[in-house]
Amino acid sequence: MDLKALIREIPDFPRPGVSFKDITTLMKDRAALAYVVRSLADHFRGAGIQTVVGVESRGYVLGAPLAYELGTGFVLIRKPGKLPAATIRVEYDLEYGKDALEIHRDALQRGERVLLVDDLLATGGTMSAAARLVRELEAETVGFGFLIELTFLGGRERLKSMGFSDSQIVTLVRYDA
Amino acid sequence: MDLKALIREIPDFPRPGVSFKDITTLMKDRAALAYVVRSLADHFRGAGIQTVVGVESRGYVLGAPLAYELGTGFVLIRKPGKLPAATIRVEYDLEYGKDALEIHRDALQRGERVLLVDDLLATGGTMSAAARLVRELEAETVGFGFLIELTFLGGRERLKSMGFSDSQIVTLVRYDA
Repeated sequence: MDLKALIREIPDFPRPGVSFKDITTLMKDRAALAYVVRSLADHFRGAGIQTVVGVESRGYVLGAPLAYELGTGFVLIRKPGKLPAATIRVEYDLEYGKDALEIHRDALQRGERVLLVDDLLATGGTMSAAARLVRELEAETVGFGFLIELTFLGGRERLKSMGFSDSQIVTLVRYDA
Repeated sequence: MDLKALIREIPDFPRPGVSFKDITTLMKDRAALAYVVRSLADHFRGAGIQTVVGVESRGYVLGAPLAYELGTGFVLIRKPGKLPAATIRVEYDLEYGKDALEIHRDALQRGERVLLVDDLLATGGTMSAAARLVRELEAETVGFGFLIELTFLGGRERLKSMGFSDSQIVTLVRYDA
């Protein structure tokens, strides 16, 4: 399936020079949604995934149906202040300034086998922060699933620098410039 | 399945006197996630749903797998400024102040049969605003799916005042006080 044809590119959003990849045009296509979820699930079936963890909020759109398809539970990583019970937090650098992510302290058990999901792998800043949260809870990130990879921004290398391998990082659509 | 036993109540969150219903403890339970999605899907199978529309961001956790299970596409309603293409917006009143929701102008076709999904029906303020967005695009809201209903806050009556019937409003867990 030609997924790229269903992803809308928005020039100069959110700022000049950036071509934003709008996945809403893909997600509203019933065949594409089914294909994307099934393709990611097929990569990780048999890997003993116990829980899918999604990053707010487009990661939920992909991660929740993936959890459903894999027959696992779904755990939410959120922006600060949104989770109601006791959390742990990691900060990470943005191009300008800092951001942070949180997960409930009791969201994952020690050794739990986790698949981390987001819509887009760009610099890897968000996802490496998410992986640090999983590590801090002593759970195990078995793999990463993304719809899109912007290969020229180095996110894959950043995740590999944390000890993950190429085969653990699955992306369905790649843009090389 | 005793869903209520899996929903964590957090006293005095986000403010004193409110008992927050934390659904993350339910969503991370694989059997409960599967049960919830299948139960809502079963209510609307055969209703000719073409698209599931979820409200940011907990509505995505429920709505996206529901779209996947029903074999439909998924459309996102978001907070202002987050959708990258041309949008329409509705404002709605909160207890203190106002909030707003947006949807892409081209997200729904005229006459498209829509299921609106969120985690929680409280006063109905958010969901009636979402239903107004669907109406403005001349699509048809066939039904509403929620995990939780706080019956004492009148959300059901508010949706009925827009012309919807009880049978169109499906909630899986009810709290009466």
